[in-house]
Amino acid sequence: MKGDHGAGEGGTQCTVLWTEGQGEKEKGQAGGPRAGQRPHALWRLLDCSGDMVGLDTYVRERPFALQLVVWFLRGVSRVILANNPLSGALILAALLWASPWQGLLGAVGVLASMLTAVLVGQDGAEVTAGLHGYNGMLVSLLMGVFSSAGDWYWWLLLPTCLGAAACTFLYSSLSPVLDRWDLPVAVFPFNIVIVLYLLVTRPDNPYFPHYPSLPVGALQANATELNTAQLLQGIFLGVGQIFACDSLGPSLLILGATLLYSPLQALHGVLGSAAGTLAGLSVAVRHGSLYSGLSGSTGPWAACVWGAFFFTFSWRSHLFAIATAFLCSYVDIAFSNLLGTIGLPACSWAATLVVTLMLLLTGRGLATYRIPIGQVRSPEHNLSSRSQWKAGNTLDPDSTVV
Amino acid sequence: MKGDHGAGEGGTQCTVLWTEGQGEKEKGQAGGPRAGQRPHALWRLLDCSGDMVGLDTYVRERPFALQLVVWFLRGVSRVILANNPLSGALILAALLWASPWQGLLGAVGVLASMLTAVLVGQDGAEVTAGLHGYNGMLVSLLMGVFSSAGDWYWWLLLPTCLGAAACTFLYSSLSPVLDRWDLPVAVFPFNIVIVLYLLVTRPDNPYFPHYPSLPVGALQANATELNTAQLLQGIFLGVGQIFACDSLGPSLLILGATLLYSPLQALHGVLGSAAGTLAGLSVAVRHGSLYSGLSGSTGPWAACVWGAFFFTFSWRSHLFAIATAFLCSYVDIAFSNLLGTIGLPACSWAATLVVTLMLLLTGRGLATYRIPIGQVRSPEHNLSSRSQWKAGNTLDPDSTVV
Amino acid sequence: MKGDHGAGEGGTQCTVLWTEGQGEKEKGQAGGPRAGQRPHALWRLLDCSGDMVGLDTYVRERPFALQLVVWFLRGVSRVILANNPLSGALILAALLWASPWQGLLGAVGVLASMLTAVLVGQDGAEVTAGLHGYNGMLVSLLMGVFSSAGDWYWWLLLPTCLGAAACTFLYSSLSPVLDRWDLPVAVFPFNIVIVLYLLVTRPDNPYFPHYPSLPVGALQANATELNTAQLLQGIFLGVGQIFACDSLGPSLLILGATLLYSPLQALHGVLGSAAGTLAGLSVAVRHGSLYSGLSGSTGPWAACVWGAFFFTFSWRSHLFAIATAFLCSYVDIAFSNLLGTIGLPACSWAATLVVTLMLLLTGRGLATYRIPIGQVRSPEHNLSSRSQWKAGNTLDPDSTVV
Repeated sequence: MKGDHGAGEGGTQCTVLWTEGQGEKEKGQAGGPRAGQRPHALWRLLDCSGDMVGLDTYVRERPFALQLVVWFLRGVSRVILANNPLSGALILAALLWASPWQGLLGAVGVLASMLTAVLVGQDGAEVTAGLHGYNGMLVSLLMGVFSSAGDWYWWLLLPTCLGAAACTFLYSSLSPVLDRWDLPVAVFPFNIVIVLYLLVTRPDNPYFPHYPSLPVGALQANATELNTAQLLQGIFLGVGQIFACDSLGPSLLILGATLLYSPLQALHGVLGSAAGTLAGLSVAVRHGSLYSGLSGSTGPWAACVWGAFFFTFSWRSHLFAIATAFLCSYVDIAFSNLLGTIGLPACSWAATLVVTLMLLLTGRGLATYRIPIGQVRSPEHNLSSRSQWKAGNTLDPDSTVV
Repeated sequence: MKGDHGAGEGGTQCTVLWTEGQGEKEKGQAGGPRAGQRPHALWRLLDCSGDMVGLDTYVRERPFALQLVVWFLRGVSRVILANNPLSGALILAALLWASPWQGLLGAVGVLASMLTAVLVGQDGAEVTAGLHGYNGMLVSLLMGVFSSAGDWYWWLLLPTCLGAAACTFLYSSLSPVLDRWDLPVAVFPFNIVIVLYLLVTRPDNPYFPHYPSLPVGALQANATELNTAQLLQGIFLGVGQIFACDSLGPSLLILGATLLYSPLQALHGVLGSAAGTLAGLSVAVRHGSLYSGLSGSTGPWAACVWGAFFFTFSWRSHLFAIATAFLCSYVDIAFSNLLGTIGLPACSWAATLVVTLMLLLTGRGLATYRIPIGQVRSPEHNLSSRSQWKAGNTLDPDSTVV
Repeated sequence: MKGDHGAGEGGTQCTVLWTEGQGEKEKGQAGGPRAGQRPHALWRLLDCSGDMVGLDTYVRERPFALQLVVWFLRGVSRVILANNPLSGALILAALLWASPWQGLLGAVGVLASMLTAVLVGQDGAEVTAGLHGYNGMLVSLLMGVFSSAGDWYWWLLLPTCLGAAACTFLYSSLSPVLDRWDLPVAVFPFNIVIVLYLLVTRPDNPYFPHYPSLPVGALQANATELNTAQLLQGIFLGVGQIFACDSLGPSLLILGATLLYSPLQALHGVLGSAAGTLAGLSVAVRHGSLYSGLSGSTGPWAACVWGAFFFTFSWRSHLFAIATAFLCSYVDIAFSNLLGTIGLPACSWAATLVVTLMLLLTGRGLATYRIPIGQVRSPEHNLSSRSQWKAGNTLDPDSTVV
């Protein structure tokens, strides 16, 4: 989609470099004569939103360490489906704020996963886009949260690195299977690895002990009145729970990181989280899990965002994303009850499976809005691409952006 | 297969309309000069058996409400693999006879599922053939049976409608995956949705409580002598258990509905049910589950019928269907023991998985009898098509009937 | 790969017949003028290693009973991925040595599975290569080991034969699905059938009782010091555990059978077994399961061998096979802990799934070493084929050997 965001961009040399044309496709028409017509500060901020494809061009001629940092930060932001190094930096800051040990674990996970991908010889484009980092990050964060050995238990870095490396292998194993139906690998590797890790090291393991999980549907000993304020807080905590972080400040910072990447995505995230809380209320899950955002929020958040991410924004796909969030939160509670009977958490199996099934939908109403995986960018970008495409009524065959 | 049932049909204007040529393919040769040679009453009955494709032509120019009723009844009859509105009406009558509340739930399930399909914009041919109804019906019937809140608990309509709608989404999600290997979606959506529902609402749920399931292999406290009469009755009750109905009268009426659609299918159903009872005896399941037809009957019934449904009838495919029934009943008992440990029923996972695997069989002995899914009609029709095809030794390339 | 092993072979009429050219491709150039240049005894031994394709030519004109014996022995050796009748004979001898009843059960399993394949009309080439025997053998061996009814309980032959027959059906059902991604069916049928059998017949079944399984991670009542000698012995016992045999002598004989087929494969097997023991130590599994070779050995053994089997030998694929073994042993422990909670063994699910995923790997580093399934032979043969191919820099299009 070369240069289709060019109008209104440009201005300073820096922002030109960050426009959305990819290096090999950029033909110079992006930074045009409109420079200087608008306030620089606002434009610089806008250029930092979206996929920041231009940054790749910028760092290509810079030292390898800088490139690695960009890949690393993209990997971090991929967890919330963003592909924006600044979002990644904000998220990392939020994690370090919530718990330095967790922040370190997350960073190690991304690095271990990415370096494995480089060593095994994965496709370079996938590595630079951060696709081989987010599963590793989630694995290491969850290992840290479930570990009952306390913070700064350095031995934990061992399973963390191995688990993150295994994610890379799983990622490239699952992609040929899922590619058949144009499906993303998503967080399947994370879910598989973390469940296996928790199964290998049972709660009473002498080296890597961990807390067992409780089903969210378990009866409450003394059910109290519902606290609306805590319920509302739980909606926002649900955003942080994606990174296994349960304090409000960092959760809001992570929401800010989403907002920076795409306001539409942040909106869907909050809607999904609210849908999850409603669903949780309707089947009477434990209040504690609603307040902490642990149940009925992470999954729906993801489902709603994914639902919006792979479809062009329209009222139909918007309703569809919310329906996906509801469906996902029920499945999430079901999985939590099922896996809880053997002391396992539900992870994000529900969101992953529901979204995978939803992407397979063949109904005429939705199939027209579906964006091929290779062309998915930020929702705002997808929306404007579609408008342009509708206007011109022709799709440029060269415009596939990976 | 245009007009290949034309000979011997026709007679009155009504029966001409109900011959098997589809409207857009019918070229008028169906109702021929042989009219009036045979007693009208018998022929009218025969015209009501099989797929009744002609009825679609008849209702196409009638009011929408009438069309909807035909689609609805086809959806009901699809549960037993029939595609015949009259069978559907008989089944609905049997359900209302057994329990009006269950009958109502079933009807609501079919409607919710069908209307969702229309709203989401599913393929029209699938809707008119009733393919988007049977999963929803099974879900709502099972929700009603497992509910421990008693009959006429109106809140149950909420999960019933949501579950039936989810079936439609799952149906159109799973079909592109299964289509790769020319497999039917079958009752996968029903099985997924009902298991998730029971997991979400654990037995002690305050809004939607349900009975937990017991493994069929659980030891009997006081094992009594086997009662042969009850065992035989269990074989026929197994037919009713497909619709979660455990009284003999309605079960026989449902068997009659099958007989109306296809005598071959009814025969295979009873054989399968008997095979299931034998298999249950061989591994000593609880007598109660044999008597009620709950274990070792539903699954095998389905397996045997499916085994016969997708293969042209011959001694080889007949034996194969019976082998499938035996295999299926063992798998059914296994699943019941497995899922029973966490209080879940085996649903029809066994039949669905076994038949799916059986349809994948690549042995030369069976592959020649396999009918492509798009061309499957009633067993009698398939048989005569094949005979004609063998006689003419050429397959009309235009004859694909969806 | 016609005649590419011809140099150095031949000599006596018998050895000519056992060269690697297949009958319909052999053009006489294999047994050449180099005969008599090397000691006969050594060459005859070498001719008995590898795939012994020439033997098929030799028996083709002999009585059917002899052919059946060759197919049967190939089926036995297929369990350890060998395709060599002499290895099969050695393994059968080892099993009979360890327990005549188990040896008999294994033989019955192979025969039941093979005869079903012949009856159902499976592809002849698959039957003669023994592909329809090894799953049946594993099923019957495991049924025997888990049965708590003691040896020579003749009724056990009934489920043994049915289970082995079911393996054949599953094999030909799963192959079209897995073929899409060029994956082997491996021991999926065995794993499915044995888990279903154990689920159908719960431990307290009156006809077919069996021992329940314990999770390997279960806490030890009185943990003693680790015994290094027993640990080393466990590595070799792990080889025997593939055939559910836990005495040292037969295990070494089975290792010898592997060595006869391919020294590279035997080496990988021992390395895999050692990797499994290391992995088991790292997460503190029960010492008993390490000593007996039951945990952390069977799976890794298989994984390492498979890892080596489907890739041309190189330092890269060697490291990869060892990594697979480690990954597999962790997954094996996870599955054992998971399935142990409902009294089921982990079987070889871990090895099967891990190897399947590993074969899907799309990394550039490994994909070049991957051998298409239809062309896989013994590792030594694959290695020399690749060297020849590299030398000639062209792949003979006719050289596909099934």
